[in-house]
Order: sequence, then C-alpha cells, then structure tokens
Amino acid sequence: MTSSDVLDTTLSIQLQKASDILLNDLDLLLKAIEKRSIEHKNTVTIGRSHAIHAEPITFGLKLAGYYAEFKRNKKRLLDARKEISTCAISGAVGTFAHIDPYVENYVSQKLDLIPEEISTQIIPRDRHAMFFSILGVIASSVERLATEIRHLQRTEVREVEEFFSQGQKGSSAMPHKRNPVLTENLTGLARLVRSSVIPALENVTLWHERDISHSSVERMIAPDATITLDFALHRLTDVIENLLIYPNTMQLNLEKLGGLVHSQQVLLALTQKGASRESAYEMVQSNAMKVWETPEHERKNVYKKLLIDDQNVRKFLDEAEIEKLFNLEQHFVHVDTIFQRVFSK
Amino acid sequence: MTSSDVLDTTLSIQLQKASDILLNDLDLLLKAIEKRSIEHKNTVTIGRSHAIHAEPITFGLKLAGYYAEFKRNKKRLLDARKEISTCAISGAVGTFAHIDPYVENYVSQKLDLIPEEISTQIIPRDRHAMFFSILGVIASSVERLATEIRHLQRTEVREVEEFFSQGQKGSSAMPHKRNPVLTENLTGLARLVRSSVIPALENVTLWHERDISHSSVERMIAPDATITLDFALHRLTDVIENLLIYPNTMQLNLEKLGGLVHSQQVLLALTQKGASRESAYEMVQSNAMKVWETPEHERKNVYKKLLIDDQNVRKFLDEAEIEKLFNLEQHFVHVDTIFQRVFSK
Amino acid sequence: MTSSDVLDTTLSIQLQKASDILLNDLDLLLKAIEKRSIEHKNTVTIGRSHAIHAEPITFGLKLAGYYAEFKRNKKRLLDARKEISTCAISGAVGTFAHIDPYVENYVSQKLDLIPEEISTQIIPRDRHAMFFSILGVIASSVERLATEIRHLQRTEVREVEEFFSQGQKGSSAMPHKRNPVLTENLTGLARLVRSSVIPALENVTLWHERDISHSSVERMIAPDATITLDFALHRLTDVIENLLIYPNTMQLNLEKLGGLVHSQQVLLALTQKGASRESAYEMVQSNAMKVWETPEHERKNVYKKLLIDDQNVRKFLDEAEIEKLFNLEQHFVHVDTIFQRVFSK
Amino acid sequence: MTSSDVLDTTLSIQLQKASDILLNDLDLLLKAIEKRSIEHKNTVTIGRSHAIHAEPITFGLKLAGYYAEFKRNKKRLLDARKEISTCAISGAVGTFAHIDPYVENYVSQKLDLIPEEISTQIIPRDRHAMFFSILGVIASSVERLATEIRHLQRTEVREVEEFFSQGQKGSSAMPHKRNPVLTENLTGLARLVRSSVIPALENVTLWHERDISHSSVERMIAPDATITLDFALHRLTDVIENLLIYPNTMQLNLEKLGGLVHSQQVLLALTQKGASRESAYEMVQSNAMKVWETPEHERKNVYKKLLIDDQNVRKFLDEAEIEKLFNLEQHFVHVDTIFQRVFSK
Repeated sequence: MTSSDVLDTTLSIQLQKASDILLNDLDLLLKAIEKRSIEHKNTVTIGRSHAIHAEPITFGLKLAGYYAEFKRNKKRLLDARKEISTCAISGAVGTFAHIDPYVENYVSQKLDLIPEEISTQIIPRDRHAMFFSILGVIASSVERLATEIRHLQRTEVREVEEFFSQGQKGSSAMPHKRNPVLTENLTGLARLVRSSVIPALENVTLWHERDISHSSVERMIAPDATITLDFALHRLTDVIENLLIYPNTMQLNLEKLGGLVHSQQVLLALTQKGASRESAYEMVQSNAMKVWETPEHERKNVYKKLLIDDQNVRKFLDEAEIEKLFNLEQHFVHVDTIFQRVFSK
Repeated sequence: MTSSDVLDTTLSIQLQKASDILLNDLDLLLKAIEKRSIEHKNTVTIGRSHAIHAEPITFGLKLAGYYAEFKRNKKRLLDARKEISTCAISGAVGTFAHIDPYVENYVSQKLDLIPEEISTQIIPRDRHAMFFSILGVIASSVERLATEIRHLQRTEVREVEEFFSQGQKGSSAMPHKRNPVLTENLTGLARLVRSSVIPALENVTLWHERDISHSSVERMIAPDATITLDFALHRLTDVIENLLIYPNTMQLNLEKLGGLVHSQQVLLALTQKGASRESAYEMVQSNAMKVWETPEHERKNVYKKLLIDDQNVRKFLDEAEIEKLFNLEQHFVHVDTIFQRVFSK
Repeated sequence: MTSSDVLDTTLSIQLQKASDILLNDLDLLLKAIEKRSIEHKNTVTIGRSHAIHAEPITFGLKLAGYYAEFKRNKKRLLDARKEISTCAISGAVGTFAHIDPYVENYVSQKLDLIPEEISTQIIPRDRHAMFFSILGVIASSVERLATEIRHLQRTEVREVEEFFSQGQKGSSAMPHKRNPVLTENLTGLARLVRSSVIPALENVTLWHERDISHSSVERMIAPDATITLDFALHRLTDVIENLLIYPNTMQLNLEKLGGLVHSQQVLLALTQKGASRESAYEMVQSNAMKVWETPEHERKNVYKKLLIDDQNVRKFLDEAEIEKLFNLEQHFVHVDTIFQRVFSK
Repeated sequence: MTSSDVLDTTLSIQLQKASDILLNDLDLLLKAIEKRSIEHKNTVTIGRSHAIHAEPITFGLKLAGYYAEFKRNKKRLLDARKEISTCAISGAVGTFAHIDPYVENYVSQKLDLIPEEISTQIIPRDRHAMFFSILGVIASSVERLATEIRHLQRTEVREVEEFFSQGQKGSSAMPHKRNPVLTENLTGLARLVRSSVIPALENVTLWHERDISHSSVERMIAPDATITLDFALHRLTDVIENLLIYPNTMQLNLEKLGGLVHSQQVLLALTQKGASRESAYEMVQSNAMKVWETPEHERKNVYKKLLIDDQNVRKFLDEAEIEKLFNLEQHFVHVDTIFQRVFSK
C-alpha cells in the first residue's frame, strides 16, 4: 500500500463526512424555507422583473422557488458525495502488482466506499472537480437568496428585515440603521466557495500516472470550501428562520403603482373583446403613462379610474368588467397547484 | 405566454440538442479509446509518477483509465441534459395568472421536456450553471488526455505520435519536426470551455423574479462552449484513432533505468526474508544510486547485477530469487481483472 | 523569420489597435460622466450604505466617484497597451541564429513597437495575461456603474431611468414597464469580459521555449473580450449621456426617513455638549426607532420633532441647536474640494 | 471617523506591507536566477518548441527569459503597491460632513499613503481587484518556471534536478526516485493564488456607497494569496539556488537527434546557393526522415553524413560547406547582446 493510497482514501472519507454535514445543513435550510413559505402562502406581494413591479405573487410562492432550488441542490450534493466516495488501494501505478485487489474490496466495504474501477497511484481528480463544482452551484444559490433579502430590506422597499435584537446596536455612526449584514456576508462567502471551482478543474490534468500538484490545492480548498459553505448554510437558515416579514409594507408597495400591475389583464380583456392588439396596447400604455406621472402617494386606484374614464376603452369594456380586472384573486388561483408540485413528497 | 417563456424553453431545447450531439461524441471517443486500449492491453510501458519512472504498466491500462474517466463524463452529461430539459410557461412572474398549467404540461409533453416545478418568468439558472460546470469537467478530462499525449510525443520520450501523413509538412523552419499540435490545440480549447463555468455560476443570482443579465452571457457561452467541446471531442477521437504507438520505444525507455523500476519488489522481498525495513531500504537505495550514476545507454540490467553482487543483499536473497524479482509478469497478473472492471457492460 | 514571429507581432499590433479604440471609448465615457456630474453637482440625494439610507450626498458626487474610477482604468489600460506593444523577430528559439537583432530593432521602430528584451519563439504570455486582467478590472467597473443605475431605476427608488423614447414599447406583456435592460445587459457583458482572465492566466505556462496551446485561446478571447468591452463602453456612455435623472424623486426619497439621516450629526452634537457616548447613543437610537415605526408618508420632519420633545435631549441641546443640526448644507461644504480633486487636470 | 475608514486604511497598510515583503522576495528570486543564468551563459542545451527539439540555446539564455519575466513582475507589483496605498477618512458616504479633509491629508502623510481622491465609506475596490490580478500574473510566472523544471527533471530528460540532500529519502515505495515535488507543489500554489482573482473582481460591484460583501472575501484572500505567494517565491528561490544542473546530459540530449537541429541552417544554405524553396525543403526533409528512423543511440552525426552522401544536396553544397553548417557556434553569436539587454541595469 502506498502513502498515496492512504492519503487519497482518507480524503474520500473526509469529503464524504463533509458531504453528510452539508446534506444535514441543506435539510435544516429546506425545513426553514418550507415553514416560512407555508406561513406566507397567501401573503400578497409584488413580483418584480428587472426590479420593476410586474404582477402580484405571494411571499410564500417567492420562497417556494428557493425551496425547489435547494431541493435540486440536495440532489446534486448527493451526486457529489457519490462522486468522491471511492477507495483506491492499487499500488504505485495502479496495477495491484504488490497487493491483491481483494484488499481494496475489503477495505472499501469496511469504510463504506466503492472500489475505484481503475486508479493510478491516485483517485482520478475529475471526481473532485465535480465535487467542488457542485459546491460552487450551491453557493450561487445561497447568493441568490441572500441578494433577494438584501433587496427586500433596502430602505425604499423594506418588506423584510434580518432579525435585529432589541439591544443590538446598528451602525455605530448612524444608529437608526438596520443593515442586512448577514446576507451581505453570505454574498461574499458565495464568492469564496465559488473560487475553489477553477483550481479544482485545473487539478484534473495531472501528469502521467500522477503528480502531486493537486495536493497543496486540496489542502486549502477542501477545508475552506466545505467549512465556508457549512457556515453559510447555517447562517442562511438562521436568517430565514428569524426573518422579519412585513405584509403591510408589501401591500403598500403593491399599491404604489396605482394598479398598473393589472395592465396585462386589461390588455388581454380588450383584445378578447375585439380590440386589435395594436389599439389595445395603445389604450393600455397611454393610460399607464399618466399613472406614471402621478405622484406616488396619490396613485391608489388611479389606473382603474383612468380606464373607466377613457371612452376608447369603454367601447370594449363596461365599468363592472374593468372593476373585475383589478381583482387580485385571479392571480392566485394556481398557488395550490404550485405548492402541491413543490412541497409534496 | 411571455416572450421569456418561449425564449427559455427554446434554450432548453437547444441545450438538449447540444447534449445529444455531445453524448454521441463521447460514445465515439469511448469506442476509440476502448479499441486502442484492447489493442495494447499487453503492451508494456513504464508508469510514471511525478514524471519519474515508477513501475511498469501496459499502454492498454493507461488508456483504460481514460476510458473510465470518459464513462463518468458521459454519466455526468446525461445528468446535465436532465438538468436543462425543463419547460416553463407560467407567465410574467410564474403564477399562471393568465394561462392554465395545463398548457405547460401539454407543451412539455410535446417537446419531450419536464414542466419546471416552479418558475418565475424564467427557468432558474442553477440548472444552467450545473450544465456548464459539467462541460468544464469534461473539458478538463480532454486536457488530461491531450497532455498525456503531448508528454509521450516529446523528443526524449516519443512513445506515441499524432498521426503525420506522408505528404504533410512539419514546421516550416525545422522540417524534421513532428509537433503534437492537435493535442496542444485541445489544451487551449479546454481552457476556453472551462472559462464558461464562472459566468454561468454568476448568472444564478438574478434579481427578484428575473433580470435579463444572464441573456447576453448565454448568447455567447451556450454556442461557444458546446461547439468548442464538440469540436474538441471529435479532434480527440481522431487523435486516438490514428495515434501512432511505438511499443519498441516504450520497451527501450523502460530499460533506461537499468531495472530500478523493480526496486519496490526487491524492498518487499528483503523485508519478507527478515531484513529490517531500514536496512532493506538502505540496500535498495544505495544500489539504486549507483545505477543512477551509470550512463544511460549502459544501464541495461545493471541494478539486478549490482544486487547480485551485494553481499548484504545476498544474506537474504539468492541469485535465483533476485532474478525472479525482475520478472515483469508479476506486474500484470491483475490486468484482466482491471479490464473486466472497466470494459464489462 | 519564423511564422510565429509574424503571428505574435501581428497580435501585438492588433491588441495595440484595440487598446487605442478602448482608450478612445474611455475618453468618451469620462466626458459623459463629467458632464452629468457637473450638471448635478448640487442635486441632493441620499447616500446609501448596505442599501440603507445613510447620509445625504449629491448626485454629482456619486458620479464623480465613477469618474475617478474610470480615470484609474484609463491609466491601467495605458499600462496594458504598453505591456503588449512589443515585437519579437528572434528566430525559432530566440537566439537570433539566422537573423540579426538589427532586423528586430528596425521592424520595431517602423511598427511603433518595442523590441522584446528576450523572446523564445514567441512573446512571453505574462504580457497578455496582464492585458486581459486589466480588461477584467475595467469590465468590473462597468458592472458597478450599471448596477448602480439598475438600483436607482427600481420601482421603489426610481431616481433615474434609462432613456425611453416616446414611441418605444416597454415589456410586451406589461406595457407600463420601463426596464433597465441596457444596464442589465452591461452586467452580463462584464461577466463575459471577465471570463477571459483565467484562460489568459493559464496561457502563461507554455512548455519550454513555446507550445501552441495559447493560440486557440487567443483567437477567441482577443476579439471577444476587446469587442465586447468596446460595445459595453459605448453602451454605457449612451446610458449616461441620456440618463433621465429625477431630482424631485431624490428629494422625496431623502425625506422618507423622517430626518434619520441626520442622526450622526445629533450624536456628535450631544457628545460635544457633554453627554456620554452611551447615553447620547441611547437618545439618538430610541427616537430613531419611533420614526422607524411611523408610516412612511407621515415621516416628514418627525425625527426633529421627537428630539425637540425629548427632555433628555433638551438637557444638552435647545430647539435652535436641534434645528441647525437638520440643515443639509453642512453635508456639502466640501463638495468643491472633492470636485477639485477629481476633475482638475 | 467611521469604523470603515479605519478598517480600509488598515487594509491598505497591510497590503502595502505584504507588497514590500513580496518585492523583497522578487529581488531574492531575481538574484538567484541571475546568478545561475550567468553561471550557465554558455552551457549548450537544446531549445524545444512543442516539446520537440528545435535549435540549440544555452541554459543561461533559458533562465534569462525568466529573469526578464520576473523583472516585469516586479514592476507590476510596484504598480499594485501604488494601487492600494491610499487612505480614506471621509465619513459615512464620503462627504467629509463631520470631518475636515485636513485630517485625511494629515493621516495619509503620517502613514505614507496617498489620500483617496474620492471615496464613499470605503476605498473603491477596483484598486484591490487590480492588486490581486497582479498577484495572479506573478503566480502564473511561478508556475511557468516550476513547470520548466518539472519537464527538465523527468526521467527521460533529466537535465536538472531539484536539490536532493544525501540523507533524504525519495519515494517510500520506490527508493530510487527523485521527484520534483517542490516544483509540483509550486504548480498547485499558483492555482491557489490565481483563485483569488475572480472573487476580487466580483468584489468591485458593491451597492451604492458601499455594502460589506467584500469584507469576508478579503479576510480570506488577503492573507491567503499574499502568504501563499510569499511562500512560493521563497521556495522557488531555494529551488533555483540549489538546482542541480547537468551540462553533460544536456549535451547528450542535444545529440540524440543526430544533427537534425541544424536542418533550418541547411535549408537556408541550399536556397542561398540557388535551390528552389520546394526542392531545398524536400532534400532537407527526406534526409531528416531517415535520421528519424535510425535508432536513437546510433544517430550521432547521422544527418550530416546523409547530406554529404546525397547527390542532390551536393549539387549546391560541398563537404566543407556542409560541415560548417553543423557548427554550433553560429547559434550563439548574439548571446552577449541578449544578456546585455536583459541584465544591464
């Protein structure tokens, strides 16, 4: 048995153990997201594309998207664990010249590893490259959720806040400030975990039956990337569990656009009633522009009123029909279906 | 249906088609490697660690390691294909407010895609990040095999050569040169494919229900990475199919170390006969150093002779026993087992 | 003269020409930023740290920071241009065995290049690695400014907007939407330019006196990275030149925190009047929390009133003194100094 | 003064100090390379392109190329040091609202820093991105030299070896082995230093006047990248200082191609004597192929003899002329010129 056999199999065991810890972290995070998601299944909030108000969703739906993403990440991490759960005891160049394959099989079984189909002195590094790539994907998902919270906490939005204990001080210079420092920190940690992907990919190309250039890399990135991701997942779970969620502010923000978020509904109704796509679009947009030019605090219901007062619109839709188009309920008729898709086991 | 629904589902179809082409490429490459591997199952060559001669292997075994690696890559690519084979037709923020989920299901079935469990305006980008990460791993395997060939073709080794047609000119300035330009090219192409991994990971963090920053990235890396990898796999298959393999040179190179590659065998034999690990090591190494100091072309069988002449060694091993330790056959008793592991379906 | 001499010197010329174009792009961008910066030198807006309102700045100051950053980028690009402006005509391994150094000197002078101090068959690739790294830094600055605009355009902030022509349609599904699609595009383009940095760094390690693995990489990244950055700088210049800037909204947003942005000023005044740091902090923060709990549209001047009504505060500051602390002017006494630093030639 | 002012200026000081250490490291490395370069100014060795023998150079010339590269790196590191040697004490959003710019100037002078022209709460991160990019370039140069040594130490080349102390054990399993483990380690360390470049570039895009996502990244990469590079430069200096260099082996390797390395010289002579480029090329290459087919150990002077015996060749060149073409001296007439270029102060 060479020292490389021992070192490489040890690394397998370490990465396997790290995977188990990370899998457990993901379970806790999933549980936290699920809980808050169900809690806010019907909390209406505005959906945004390009950071511009689009159409209403619920906060529970928003979180459900992250739940589905981390479910995928859990599946990927299981694959990653499998990738690195192999054992090689095949001698200096992998021929089993001085040791019977029986030993490899025996040890593999004892260690709950799979014998590496063919090794040289080492376990091939495409396995580890795959492992760290998957950590990079998970870290990117962490960053996406962290970024969402940072956006929602900004002064002008403030639909959620990271938990802020009664006694906790904010910024030393500006005591009123409640900064989303945890999720900003997570954004940075994601960059760090991702930075292990390229060196892991560069590690694949070892010379001939092995060179040891991969070793210094792994001695740094193996603990750094796994521990950083473990810390990040814990922190993210804490953030989600304790997230302050403000449905009232969500409602106020939703109203700020004076009903414009229903414009697509209006557009569809007009065309169904016989307006050409072009003229319907023109009616919808010209009134929309007027809302846009109204001061924010005077916008409530403005769009609906403008449409009711627009004689061109009224050729196709009566007042009651317009009223109905501004009903929020229509947006949420499929929430149950989506929740069923995401959370059913 | 939003334009994003159409664009994203179209991207799924394109990446799925690209996957199918790449899967076919991998099949052809695997076939080529398998053929040459079986052809040279018993072609003895030196195994090298740290680019230093270690112990004998066969050229077929060397190739079998790459075969196993590309089998893993095929499995990964199948996973990648699955990752991006989803369809989203869920409206502006994913609520199905203006379109029934039935449409998504219907279209998915027609297009041989899976309905995305939950989407916003877009299919979540962790899927694409995973896809490009897997291309990066495959490209790194391409680089490893290309690098192996570049090493084996260098003037001082020259155990293999890229095919060089009768009429083909070499370097314009140095007409005798046969440069491994195809595998050098593959090394560069691997860097290119890998360069799509980080932007794909950065694409995961879109704002709220979507922003369009991912789009310009994908319009470049989706064709560039898939086409480059397709080209690279084809080129690599050509290189392997037509690789000039020189068993005689392999034999000559093997002999250049004067039998030192058997030193571990000697070490083990000495300790089994009662020598302490320390003194066995000392005997083995002091004689090894003498070989090292012998001119290369005079080294044939030198190590064996030195050991036979060493009275300390002879206290533990007689001449016949030493002779037997220099038998190459012992190194290859498990070749069948390994081939069975790698190539059995 | 080898073909590599010709190819490498040609690459120098191409990258030099690309540098000249990019330098011109930066000049145009600098001019655009300077113009808007001076135009809004005194346009008051809120400064934000952690995306939370901090203290007032002016919009001109905000832009001046980007001006300074792109000035640095111009200096870096001049260095990059110098790095790759060399010529090598030194033969197959750089010995000038078949060609006199005089030729290299002569051609260098004609082409406005510097003779490479020592080359092998090629110009050393640390030069090109430096070149692409600098493009990566510039692209990251592009992303920072693009991201700033994306934030400022979001529905809840809307202090600026990308130019939106009268006739231009917004989102097809949601006609009221004005999406910051140009700056989102720039965010993606930055990722692409940055993706050339790692392959360029990997290109440095060529084997012995040269291998050709760098070539396929450069044939892709040299045009891709330079043209993408050229396009991005042009687009960013357009965005800045035509940016719709809304001082009124900036003023409204500034008032949304009810005067909390002056809290540091209050804190300093209290301590100067003899309050301990701890008790001053307590007074400032407890009143701040009350503002925080007031509905947004009722917050105007609330903080000032709360402080005037707070007997603890009044032990240290009288009404006139408190009034004075809420004066915006104090924040801008050094704007001239900073503009002088940034824009003086 | 905000805590960020203190933290950022402290980071400047730390990176400045790290730069000074690294500059000193580079000086020591340059000294070591210069010494060995001069020592082997006239040690003839084969130059290789594509890892194939090309034309002769001297080992001193080879090292001189690395000397020039690390001189460039020193200049770059001086630029990097300048980039991060700034001080910001400008308050919460950079307006100097509560602190006079005089303080910043005063502190800057005391700390040997430059006042940041314009800062927000923090020093802009394009500076740090540039700093780490430059470390990435230097690390890549380390990898290039390390790779050169790894190639030259391989069993079949063995023109140099890392120092191997008398008592030092080689591989535990194969005691004759002298592995280039230091330079393999350096190859891995280069990957690690390079891995800090992308997160440093991603750190540039902070939100508005600052967010703190850069901080966790810098707390890891600032010590990791600088200390790793410091260690790598020391190790590389040791390797160069103590490198075992084998001129005899270089001579033997040079002869292995039977004189083919002079083929370009022959080609030029034939065309100068009136042969067409095509026919000259044909003569040169057809004889070259015969050398190629001769066993390695019988190749000495074979090419020259073949040419002398070739009646087509003899129509243009007599025996004395051919003899002269195989003179090594012609390759080295410009070595002094190159050394002058590289080592003159």
